[in-house]
Amino acid sequence: KSKQLLRVNGFVCKNPMEVNADNFFKAAALDKPRVTNKVGSNVTLINVMQIAGLNTLGISIARIDYAPLGQNPPHTHPRATEILTVLEGTLYVGFVTSNQPAPNRNKFLSKVLNKGDVFVFPAGLIHFQFNPNPHKPAIAIAALSSQNPGAITIANAVFGSDPQISDDVLAKAFQVEKNTIDWLQAQFWENNH
Amino acid sequence: KSKQLLRVNGFVCKNPMEVNADNFFKAAALDKPRVTNKVGSNVTLINVMQIAGLNTLGISIARIDYAPLGQNPPHTHPRATEILTVLEGTLYVGFVTSNQPAPNRNKFLSKVLNKGDVFVFPAGLIHFQFNPNPHKPAIAIAALSSQNPGAITIANAVFGSDPQISDDVLAKAFQVEKNTIDWLQAQFWENNH
Amino acid sequence: KSKQLLRVNGFVCKNPMEVNADNFFKAAALDKPRVTNKVGSNVTLINVMQIAGLNTLGISIARIDYAPLGQNPPHTHPRATEILTVLEGTLYVGFVTSNQPAPNRNKFLSKVLNKGDVFVFPAGLIHFQFNPNPHKPAIAIAALSSQNPGAITIANAVFGSDPQISDDVLAKAFQVEKNTIDWLQAQFWENNH
Amino acid sequence: KSKQLLRVNGFVCKNPMEVNADNFFKAAALDKPRVTNKVGSNVTLINVMQIAGLNTLGISIARIDYAPLGQNPPHTHPRATEILTVLEGTLYVGFVTSNQPAPNRNKFLSKVLNKGDVFVFPAGLIHFQFNPNPHKPAIAIAALSSQNPGAITIANAVFGSDPQISDDVLAKAFQVEKNTIDWLQAQFWENNH
Amino acid sequence: KSKQLLRVNGFVCKNPMEVNADNFFKAAALDKPRVTNKVGSNVTLINVMQIAGLNTLGISIARIDYAPLGQNPPHTHPRATEILTVLEGTLYVGFVTSNQPAPNRNKFLSKVLNKGDVFVFPAGLIHFQFNPNPHKPAIAIAALSSQNPGAITIANAVFGSDPQISDDVLAKAFQVEKNTIDWLQAQFWENNH
Amino acid sequence: KSKQLLRVNGFVCKNPMEVNADNFFKAAALDKPRVTNKVGSNVTLINVMQIAGLNTLGISIARIDYAPLGQNPPHTHPRATEILTVLEGTLYVGFVTSNQPAPNRNKFLSKVLNKGDVFVFPAGLIHFQFNPNPHKPAIAIAALSSQNPGAITIANAVFGSDPQISDDVLAKAFQVEKNTIDWLQAQFWENNH
Repeated sequence: KSKQLLRVNGFVCKNPMEVNADNFFKAAALDKPRVTNKVGSNVTLINVMQIAGLNTLGISIARIDYAPLGQNPPHTHPRATEILTVLEGTLYVGFVTSNQPAPNRNKFLSKVLNKGDVFVFPAGLIHFQFNPNPHKPAIAIAALSSQNPGAITIANAVFGSDPQISDDVLAKAFQVEKNTIDWLQAQFWENNH
Repeated sequence: KSKQLLRVNGFVCKNPMEVNADNFFKAAALDKPRVTNKVGSNVTLINVMQIAGLNTLGISIARIDYAPLGQNPPHTHPRATEILTVLEGTLYVGFVTSNQPAPNRNKFLSKVLNKGDVFVFPAGLIHFQFNPNPHKPAIAIAALSSQNPGAITIANAVFGSDPQISDDVLAKAFQVEKNTIDWLQAQFWENNH
Repeated sequence: KSKQLLRVNGFVCKNPMEVNADNFFKAAALDKPRVTNKVGSNVTLINVMQIAGLNTLGISIARIDYAPLGQNPPHTHPRATEILTVLEGTLYVGFVTSNQPAPNRNKFLSKVLNKGDVFVFPAGLIHFQFNPNPHKPAIAIAALSSQNPGAITIANAVFGSDPQISDDVLAKAFQVEKNTIDWLQAQFWENNH
Repeated sequence: KSKQLLRVNGFVCKNPMEVNADNFFKAAALDKPRVTNKVGSNVTLINVMQIAGLNTLGISIARIDYAPLGQNPPHTHPRATEILTVLEGTLYVGFVTSNQPAPNRNKFLSKVLNKGDVFVFPAGLIHFQFNPNPHKPAIAIAALSSQNPGAITIANAVFGSDPQISDDVLAKAFQVEKNTIDWLQAQFWENNH
Repeated sequence: KSKQLLRVNGFVCKNPMEVNADNFFKAAALDKPRVTNKVGSNVTLINVMQIAGLNTLGISIARIDYAPLGQNPPHTHPRATEILTVLEGTLYVGFVTSNQPAPNRNKFLSKVLNKGDVFVFPAGLIHFQFNPNPHKPAIAIAALSSQNPGAITIANAVFGSDPQISDDVLAKAFQVEKNTIDWLQAQFWENNH
Repeated sequence: KSKQLLRVNGFVCKNPMEVNADNFFKAAALDKPRVTNKVGSNVTLINVMQIAGLNTLGISIARIDYAPLGQNPPHTHPRATEILTVLEGTLYVGFVTSNQPAPNRNKFLSKVLNKGDVFVFPAGLIHFQFNPNPHKPAIAIAALSSQNPGAITIANAVFGSDPQISDDVLAKAFQVEKNTIDWLQAQFWENNH
């Protein structure tokens, strides 16, 4: 018997006659703090991989935990804008605009957010959140405008790819010596998702 | 001097040279409980009217407060799917599928949600949330896949429109006497946004 | 031999090499009046379920028959705008705007249409058509901006869902007694498609 | 006082606070036969230029009158799929597929349509309708999946453009003598809209 | 074992776990001149049929070779805008606007392009390129805003379809005698892709 | 007299009655090599800022010059997929996939391209091109699936933003000492557009 399943956007589609409430539901998804990684954060994303009924609907939601002085490091979402609100603690957040237009290149727009503040990270731009408090954790809820937004942590993608990008290329791009690149590529680049 | 401003999607667009972090920010937007209305809820929506930088980006976020036994009554969003997570308390939630296809008409899919559970209300379908707890309030965060999702509270739009819809039409549509419609149209239909 | 078929948007896709004119055609689809239901109308919709070639093309067409004093009761299309023209008779038509913006909530926009008049019902808004003539039927052609627009008859979805929505919820939402809701839920909610 | 008006998609946008039913309405638009042109047809299109409220909503509707032996000549809609139903008479209709894929180039798919039949012309493909009856007119209603679908009558655009396309180019493209092209370019190419 | 493959947009989709660089690559695709056809051109299009990884990504690229006095004859792309730059030689290029709006029907916009010039052909409009030099070939690179833009060569689709369009219809549409149409339909309409 | 101009997507829109061929044209745009910057490349992009008629049409085109051992350093396009072909020389190119899905994180897919080869960089992913030849320059033509694709050079946006991102944040994100970040931020990050 055929086990082949239909995939749309890479995900299996259920016969519409058979959908039920569980296809639109994920229990105990975002209530518990999770262990933060070595940069001090953990992103729990509920997307189409967790809730199949999200497929084609263009939205997903995440809880982000931040250790004291922890950060969700500079990253982009290739297919989504993000809107974030702080549930607990304080966050220093920002994004950098693109190379264009010329007089306005790579502007860094930032804010310190407190509980209940809302901030927007436009689609595809490099952004981060940092918990400046050395004693208290922080928590945020973020929503993304895609059922599968993707995430590209800049340092991980550049220095931790598999296989590695040529150190000749990276040394010139980042204006450092090749052995600095080699050292960076030898580190462990932990994902925080 | 001309005061006319460019509107895209009905909203003013700023010169891209002059954007700053405040155009992507709303302070103290979602931290405080708000007074619930007579059906026992209050929706605080942060959309393009509160954060101009959201225009064209396809997302918005809301906090919903529920009184004990309060509800966010049956409504639709004409331009958005909603994904909701419970921050405090318990919610009984559900949506009704459309008239089609024939053997599957108007199915009601529901769940009881606890803190941290996530549920999806697909675009345009009638849905509600109800706090079944007679003693404790509930709080949810909801994200919507549009910067201007719109909301149509069914009872308000049908019985509380300005001017009123003909009671001949509504009496037949709802299979009740005209004086029942007249009584309904005489009530105060309070918005919970 | 595998019987599994590719579905896109939930519908089977044909090998492009094998398409023929019949995949874009439906015979005798819209010429004959059909028996109207108990609210006095009948919608004959030609969508992707009748013409497979419509898939992904974003349009469908319907004939609507109205008995004397019949109506196509308040409903929404979750995925389409509708444009309608009257072929025979007279129609009183209207739609209600959404809850927003505040000073302009739930405005009811209506017109009496005669033969050849054209009216637009924007995507997702509650609308209806009513034949005010006690003696003559009416006929309209409506086009919808989706190959699968969906239809949600408000009364049917709210009071005739399967299973039923809690009468506690509906009583508060519609500001009536629970036994009124129970009575409504006990009625037969006939679909007019 | 500034008279400059906001245009979106090239059309003026009204302040959402001031919309009324007339912005979604066109009286007596499609009820009367219109005089057919020299190829024997007349298209009465109700698009965003006639009903401003259609802007961004992605649909329009037309009535097409055909004289006996009249035709709506080969044309394309650069921005829309068309779905057509016959109200009166008989139509011979068809469209030609694109150059690709190789074994299936430029297939001509056609049907004879009677009253009530429905046919689909996919976006951008060359199509026509012809009334084969030498004695009776025909009438159709067509809907298009854009508020501004555009129409390009092939003969008019190729031989009747202003200024004319070089006859060197056209002679080679159509495999005829330059004086045949010159003769064609000297004809009057009447629009049927 | 099932050989059925998932198709999205009509093309096979690979399991995302198994993609590799070859799925985004085509070797020696656009470097060599190809033999031009009888109208004096040859279009080498690299679309989703050549590079499977292009599916859903909305772009493709082509090299076009022109013999001396050769042309890429009047055609449309039903699903794409084209942007072209000249690599070698000179091209006389143009497109014709649609029938609307009335005072501006079927305008022909043209330019003579030299090496390095860039020109845009908006989606769905009839356009061509012609090499006016009787001695030297020309080369262009064109990009299209779809992974499967389609191409409809006007003369081929109108006079070379399979089966043929009725000569009654075409004679009236093109204002010529039926035997002229018959003669045109008897020619060989060679595709230049 | 009002000088205010309509902008759609941030760009001025012309009255459709007044468009001419120059609105779709840019002379001598891509024929000449340009001086490469200190990483050894120069991107000449023709987008909606150079050709106003591109607005809303979803495509743009670029010429990229590479010095011997020059590179177009790691960057993303927040709103476009890129398809590239080599006109002269050899390029080592690649992109890194996103963090997801888990067993397949941050895969680096690369190729060495010769004249006429075609390669695709999917929307939003970090990619680069490098000319490995120490003696000869290289030239490529790239097309992008947006009239305003944007470009974010990773090193420039991270280390060369205005104002600078906190060195506390970057030190932790890149697993280096703060003084290494300070040194990087003190460099000149030259744009190659």
